[in-house]
Amino acid sequence: MRIARVVGSAVSTIKADQLRGAKLLIVRPASVADELTGEPFVAVDSVGAGEGELVLVSEGSAGRVTDLTADAPVDAVIMAILDSLEVAGQTTFRKG
Amino acid sequence: MRIARVVGSAVSTIKADQLRGAKLLIVRPASVADELTGEPFVAVDSVGAGEGELVLVSEGSAGRVTDLTADAPVDAVIMAILDSLEVAGQTTFRKG
Amino acid sequence: MRIARVVGSAVSTIKADQLRGAKLLIVRPASVADELTGEPFVAVDSVGAGEGELVLVSEGSAGRVTDLTADAPVDAVIMAILDSLEVAGQTTFRKG
Amino acid sequence: MRIARVVGSAVSTIKADQLRGAKLLIVRPASVADELTGEPFVAVDSVGAGEGELVLVSEGSAGRVTDLTADAPVDAVIMAILDSLEVAGQTTFRKG
Amino acid sequence: MRIARVVGSAVSTIKADQLRGAKLLIVRPASVADELTGEPFVAVDSVGAGEGELVLVSEGSAGRVTDLTADAPVDAVIMAILDSLEVAGQTTFRKG
Repeated sequence: MRIARVVGSAVSTIKADQLRGAKLLIVRPASVADELTGEPFVAVDSVGAGEGELVLVSEGSAGRVTDLTADAPVDAVIMAILDSLEVAGQTTFRKG
Repeated sequence: MRIARVVGSAVSTIKADQLRGAKLLIVRPASVADELTGEPFVAVDSVGAGEGELVLVSEGSAGRVTDLTADAPVDAVIMAILDSLEVAGQTTFRKG
Repeated sequence: MRIARVVGSAVSTIKADQLRGAKLLIVRPASVADELTGEPFVAVDSVGAGEGELVLVSEGSAGRVTDLTADAPVDAVIMAILDSLEVAGQTTFRKG
Repeated sequence: MRIARVVGSAVSTIKADQLRGAKLLIVRPASVADELTGEPFVAVDSVGAGEGELVLVSEGSAGRVTDLTADAPVDAVIMAILDSLEVAGQTTFRKG
Repeated sequence: MRIARVVGSAVSTIKADQLRGAKLLIVRPASVADELTGEPFVAVDSVGAGEGELVLVSEGSAGRVTDLTADAPVDAVIMAILDSLEVAGQTTFRKG
């Protein structure tokens, strides 16, 4: 799963029916220290994530393995909100 | 899902039978401010998207989770037309 | 789907049984103007494509959604031969 | 499968229900000589891997083909701990 | 499918049960002229490939469409040994 920060949101009226009610969030890949490292993309939120939070994003068919997105044409889902990350015994990120 | 702009279309007479009637659009990855950022590829349209529109493209097996493309050898589908994008509280894109 | 040009072919005697009779073509990613842009890879032909033709290649599990490749360990299939491409109202490619 | 080294771990309270009890490890792609070569990402551990170990990571839908992750929105799983790697007749890595 | 050369092998005692008996080979992406072009990764051998041979590797869920790897957490399989490659009418590779 990619580490990513929620940076915004997308609004779409005309979309696949299965996405009615789904929250479309804009995320950017981030480092283990919550620095932005990659370009934005859009993921469906399945855990109530909010802007500024560091999350995990599952891509590919994993995006459809939630109640919200089953059988939806979705290739990215936020499936965890990160509390903390630890690398080599050091805490590199802790939720504020 | 990738943010992309519809920039053109493809015509193919000899193609997989399951694609009869499907609209093949040329899209290019775009930023949250609708600037083109990547190279063109082709996606099947499932929402009536038109040239110039900013859309979301789902890739991989997600491309087959629409009535139009079920069981078609398709790996990219336009599944939403974007109305607006907001990053850090600022509207970065609004449909014209 | 990726736009690609058929540039050659591969011969393999020892291969997965499901690939008996399948044509293995070497393709290279191409621009909307039929310029080669990427490195060669191999795709199974499902539409009778020939060398020099501009085609669409579906990757991932889409490679198995043809009669020829169902249940074969295949991750890329040529599923359309392009007649023409149009970008911003201009024809960028037309089959010779 | 990618060769990767386990470099840390992630803690998440709010996550997909199917991930209760799953260990989320931070891994970094590595060379055959156990040199770090890529950026960190998160994989579910299915084999009891520990920090510092060189492992294999399967990505995509393969991430769900374990008892632990079946039907979980997961796109990366550690499915082997490496004992040794040999390239061109030379041992490039041996577990300490 | 990617063209790749078998350059070595991996040994793992602690691994997914479904991989018992599977041969884990180290491969590197290669050009149509058998020049190494990319970084090593690991694929399950399904065709009896040996070191030095040029092969085709299928990635993603295709890695599980062999008797050997069905239901195994595998994302890359060697499914063909190349005899020869021809580009633009020239033989660029022939098995020695």
